[in-house]
Amino acid sequence: MTAEIRRDPRNVVLRIGHRVQRDQRVTTHVCLTARALGASGVIISDVNDRRLSETVQRVTSEFGGHFTIETGTPWRRAIAEWKRSGGKVVHLTAYGIPLPNIIDRIRASAVDKLIVVGAEKVPGELFQIADWNVAVTNQPISEVSALGIFLDWLFEHRRLQEEFTNAKLRIIPTEHGKKVEGASPGHQA
Amino acid sequence: MTAEIRRDPRNVVLRIGHRVQRDQRVTTHVCLTARALGASGVIISDVNDRRLSETVQRVTSEFGGHFTIETGTPWRRAIAEWKRSGGKVVHLTAYGIPLPNIIDRIRASAVDKLIVVGAEKVPGELFQIADWNVAVTNQPISEVSALGIFLDWLFEHRRLQEEFTNAKLRIIPTEHGKKVEGASPGHQA
Repeated sequence: MTAEIRRDPRNVVLRIGHRVQRDQRVTTHVCLTARALGASGVIISDVNDRRLSETVQRVTSEFGGHFTIETGTPWRRAIAEWKRSGGKVVHLTAYGIPLPNIIDRIRASAVDKLIVVGAEKVPGELFQIADWNVAVTNQPISEVSALGIFLDWLFEHRRLQEEFTNAKLRIIPTEHGKKVEGASPGHQA
Repeated sequence: MTAEIRRDPRNVVLRIGHRVQRDQRVTTHVCLTARALGASGVIISDVNDRRLSETVQRVTSEFGGHFTIETGTPWRRAIAEWKRSGGKVVHLTAYGIPLPNIIDRIRASAVDKLIVVGAEKVPGELFQIADWNVAVTNQPISEVSALGIFLDWLFEHRRLQEEFTNAKLRIIPTEHGKKVEGASPGHQA
């Protein structure tokens, strides 16, 4: 008889179609949103972007947690490996099934999830490969807000006040002002 | 005796600190998120950005609704006028009070709301002027996802499937594929 070790399923974001110059800021927003809303890490497919990796690693080092960033893996390979190890694939797209109609099915599946967000147009085959194509509204929207809202729903709106381990800096909620614990004078979070 | 005409409070997004070159794409994401999640319009303060306005107007013309965009108004004046006409001001910032702890107070206030989102660093006085400084997580995040999550909470998670009036194009939710009603062959939404 073997004891089965259970752990919470991991949620990793796969950003595809990132262009180093043009998407620098939007992809940074994708990464910060993923980390703040409880994803375990992000994969930036097909390209290496050292500046982006450094920004994300610096935020994690300062504000804590164990968020990982991996860059350069071809997107088809990242998805194939994910599926081979038993995980499922969510693709966020305005063309998909409305989030309220599909979230229960996704939550009920206790396996690791790869959450795919594209930059502008995505390859048509992604719609076939994904286990779930999910629409955070069937309107033109941003992949950044779609990702944030999806993760908030996935965690049943309970992860907005998560404490991060090993944080050097911690923001203290304030009615009117800015307060950061652990910051040297003049430091701006 | 005068009959009082009641209407739903308006929610307008005020984007401050927009820089025409650098913030083009992120501010577009702010505008699309505001529209998709049920805001009535957006004010881009202090600068005119014709390309941005045209993009937002084109999306509204194609996908419907009555979303407005105004550009160039100085941010202090936009806020002062808002308050003078009885509205209140929400400022989304990682330094504020966690959304779950403050949303009931905001929802209970049945007046028009101006929801302020900055680009990078915002003027310190904004923290004083705002009626509510609201944190969508006390972590570094994106103003795009913060706005999306805030609006989703404001509307009690019920506005993700809103139908827009006068839409020329309508996305038909699909399990695996892309379907747009009203599109000419080959049209990409």
